[in-house]
Amino acid sequence: MTAPPWFYGPGLKERPAFFDLAPEESRHLAGSRRLRVGDDITVFDGVGTTAAGQVLEMDSRQLKVRVALAGYQSVDEDLPRIHLMSAVPKGDRQSTLLDMATQLGMSDYTPLLCERSTSVPGERAAARWQRIMIEACKQSRRPWIPRIHSATGLKTVTTGKRSVRQMMIVADLTGGRMSQLSALYLDEIVLLVGPEGGFSSAEIDQIHEAGTTLVALGSTVLRTETAAVTLVSATLNFLRGRS
Amino acid sequence: MTAPPWFYGPGLKERPAFFDLAPEESRHLAGSRRLRVGDDITVFDGVGTTAAGQVLEMDSRQLKVRVALAGYQSVDEDLPRIHLMSAVPKGDRQSTLLDMATQLGMSDYTPLLCERSTSVPGERAAARWQRIMIEACKQSRRPWIPRIHSATGLKTVTTGKRSVRQMMIVADLTGGRMSQLSALYLDEIVLLVGPEGGFSSAEIDQIHEAGTTLVALGSTVLRTETAAVTLVSATLNFLRGRS
Repeated sequence: MTAPPWFYGPGLKERPAFFDLAPEESRHLAGSRRLRVGDDITVFDGVGTTAAGQVLEMDSRQLKVRVALAGYQSVDEDLPRIHLMSAVPKGDRQSTLLDMATQLGMSDYTPLLCERSTSVPGERAAARWQRIMIEACKQSRRPWIPRIHSATGLKTVTTGKRSVRQMMIVADLTGGRMSQLSALYLDEIVLLVGPEGGFSSAEIDQIHEAGTTLVALGSTVLRTETAAVTLVSATLNFLRGRS
Repeated sequence: MTAPPWFYGPGLKERPAFFDLAPEESRHLAGSRRLRVGDDITVFDGVGTTAAGQVLEMDSRQLKVRVALAGYQSVDEDLPRIHLMSAVPKGDRQSTLLDMATQLGMSDYTPLLCERSTSVPGERAAARWQRIMIEACKQSRRPWIPRIHSATGLKTVTTGKRSVRQMMIVADLTGGRMSQLSALYLDEIVLLVGPEGGFSSAEIDQIHEAGTTLVALGSTVLRTETAAVTLVSATLNFLRGRS
């Protein structure tokens, strides 16, 4: 682990030569990471751009760290995008879901409101979730932070307009295997994961009518976050196998 | 979710008609699950046997619940066994690792001591871990609780005697794809996952010399628990694809 640690710096589009980290990132750099003037870091903007940074100055309260930036790199987002739509498990389980799915390569997240949903995200959830995703991006050196969309009912998802370049996959014990999918030329793969008590029978009908693909993730009953992480991982493994 | 909830009852080998749940399980049944006399449950012993139970009596302090058992079923453990050996991430991350890997189908767990390990399990870790695994078995309706083995150094693992019916897989960014494995007639698949800072170069040499198979889990750097869960899931998916 000699690679420089990552820090979040939104707004690198103009490729500035100097950059002031936000207070939270500054505190993290000077406090828990114990970096000092002259140390190397990587700054990423969450939308594909990274730069090699060097710590230039930090104020005495460690709330403002100025870095010099050079060696800019930009990468496009991978296609197809992996868009996870899941019921929201309670508390830490949702944090685990977002952390792991981001490390693996999820590109979009929508909280899914189902009949048996036990948890409806509050107003401040998106900000908290984005913080978790930023930390996961740093950890896994991913320059793209997943986009968080508004909470949506399953019915809106299954009856909404769909592009021909979009596929919808549902984790279901009765489904087939991922390897039987045909996923050429897709822009987006939507992964639907239900709540703890499963989708209701009305919801299962909606899912079938929407022409989704059912994929079994094994023979055991999985918690929402385990099913979500496993489905993201299996989908990405499947896509890598094709290329 | 109308299936009866699961409770742990070790020692069903003689197939008793009546059974007293231990205090912790009794409290769970009467307290958080709010079950009452007459309610249906499933009791599992963690080594493959389940029975349909009905609550017969509970004492006023809810520390002793007596159930009637019938309809015994025993299943053999799946082969090959999935034996995860991982460095131990800190705190809740280890709980998440054990919870998810158990839900998915891990059969054995060994804490792996590596050069860069930051966390060495204490004396009471195994009891705490088993508790997590029991809860995960209930959740996923798995009648087999994973076995927990003593902490072992990587060197002991890589230089130890190995059966021809055992395969060792390591998560490594330079590895190949799971689908290229040949895993016929195996008793056990050992999955090795390193600590946050990765295996040291001396350890990587040991791993290569031991004739292990390197499998890449994608292109991002994963935390120990994310790599472990993904590797267990990918291995089980691969095995299911063969059958």
